[in-house]
Amino acid sequence: MEIQFLGTGAGMPARHRNVSSLVLKLLQERNEAWLFDCGEAAQIQILHTTIKPRKINKIFITHLHGDHIFGLPGFLSSRTFQASEVQTPLDLYGPVGIKTFVESALKLSQTRLGYPIHFHELSKDGLVFEDSTFKVEAAKLEHGIVCFGFRVTEKDKIGELQVEKLKALGVPSGPIYGKIKAGQPLEINGVSYPASDFIGEVKLGKVVTILGDTRKSVRSVRLAEGSDVLVHEATYDKANQGVAHQHFHSTSIDAAKVAREAKVGQLLMNHISARFTIKGMYELAREAQELFAASKVVRDLEEFKIE
Amino acid sequence: MEIQFLGTGAGMPARHRNVSSLVLKLLQERNEAWLFDCGEAAQIQILHTTIKPRKINKIFITHLHGDHIFGLPGFLSSRTFQASEVQTPLDLYGPVGIKTFVESALKLSQTRLGYPIHFHELSKDGLVFEDSTFKVEAAKLEHGIVCFGFRVTEKDKIGELQVEKLKALGVPSGPIYGKIKAGQPLEINGVSYPASDFIGEVKLGKVVTILGDTRKSVRSVRLAEGSDVLVHEATYDKANQGVAHQHFHSTSIDAAKVAREAKVGQLLMNHISARFTIKGMYELAREAQELFAASKVVRDLEEFKIE
Repeated sequence: MEIQFLGTGAGMPARHRNVSSLVLKLLQERNEAWLFDCGEAAQIQILHTTIKPRKINKIFITHLHGDHIFGLPGFLSSRTFQASEVQTPLDLYGPVGIKTFVESALKLSQTRLGYPIHFHELSKDGLVFEDSTFKVEAAKLEHGIVCFGFRVTEKDKIGELQVEKLKALGVPSGPIYGKIKAGQPLEINGVSYPASDFIGEVKLGKVVTILGDTRKSVRSVRLAEGSDVLVHEATYDKANQGVAHQHFHSTSIDAAKVAREAKVGQLLMNHISARFTIKGMYELAREAQELFAASKVVRDLEEFKIE
Repeated sequence: MEIQFLGTGAGMPARHRNVSSLVLKLLQERNEAWLFDCGEAAQIQILHTTIKPRKINKIFITHLHGDHIFGLPGFLSSRTFQASEVQTPLDLYGPVGIKTFVESALKLSQTRLGYPIHFHELSKDGLVFEDSTFKVEAAKLEHGIVCFGFRVTEKDKIGELQVEKLKALGVPSGPIYGKIKAGQPLEINGVSYPASDFIGEVKLGKVVTILGDTRKSVRSVRLAEGSDVLVHEATYDKANQGVAHQHFHSTSIDAAKVAREAKVGQLLMNHISARFTIKGMYELAREAQELFAASKVVRDLEEFKIE
């Protein structure tokens, strides 16, 4: 599992930061990639990565502000033009209104997609997706308009059956193996061995929480609780705490506090105001690190392995 | 007057060519710049030029295909955020539907602009703008959907009154100067001098014709007749003449024929398919130059002075 940032700026594109978009790469886990927000030119940033648009089969939109959605119509159109093989359906999750936005842009531009989009319009907190290996939960944050954060949980993988150990005890393969995997104790010569003796360690799934724009909020802390990685906005620095609050945004201090309170493994800060160039960016990071050491201000196209 | 290309590719962004957009710079003539088409990331390309979004006070949209309009919501939003002073109104000309596209994107993203947009939805050929120094005419081309070309005419400038010449003849400044400028002959000692003797040469205005996507068409020839510069699409090469026709596009040969028939000064070819990289681009230009010497395939951010 890797996370790659396509745009890490706030509000409008700057030469050094594009607007919001990131990809959660689940290639090994699912042979898929999930897009979170799709600001203008996200599809152009993708041209500078190894990501294949046809692998992106889920898009999660945090909120409807232009810097998070204006790249959607173009990305969706190009995804159809680029596909050389069977076109896979796409699931699109976002606040109420996202369907009208996409459909009206595609209709007026007379764009015909070669794949269906399944829209999932969100209006409240809760589970938005679940299958046997992953689940995604959403929670409303504190922004000027309805804005969600998403918690992506990879489910724990049950340990593998330790076949060599069973064979050494003279237990041949057969239906008994299935019973042990299902947790039934093994009886040999009147001795009962718990199933766990023959099952390897559980592989814990990773948890990544990706927030939209927000003030520092207990809702963020609750959603991110114990995540391996938290992506939190840091539009402003400490000196602009008042401005941040007024505009429903966060400082890097706010982000670090949320990371600390939620006891996450790593904090990645995005949605950085264009006013912070290289020097400002280090200062933002330094302010956050004083409160939460594993803090980082990310850059466009930067990629992180989650392990 | 200069023309600068922001995106010169076709259909979708490629690493070496962005989608359609160009700026006609009228800084000396009007202290304005006019945008023609606004494909995704036009505003990002502008960041790499000296163009100020607030100077752009007219946008002309040739047609509603996504690669010509998906950058509009972002450009319009950023134009309001970037302005530090009084925000100037903007005139937007384009096919019927452009108003709904823009308004629906701005409404759903809850974007409030600090300036009014005056929409001019076009449904037929004719004059779309005129004032004392410039006029713009539109004509429908031959594309899969309604698509316009625009002919921008700078009006001729009347010559200046040659004051030194009049003074040498002993004619003092006064109402008589106005009369001469208005074309009235000058009488001195019974000798009549035509007004033209005291008026400098007329400065001919420039004419630039900028076409949208189109097949080779007599409509293009009529609109471009005698232009100093013609911007014509060249999506395909000679080998793909059939494909070009089928998709309502042109080859570089088509573009050169239109340039030759319209007797323009210079042909600038844009909307180049991503399949043509450096070598293909020179081949496209060579094919056109065999028919019309002053032909050029343009690149993103390339700028031309029109003189």
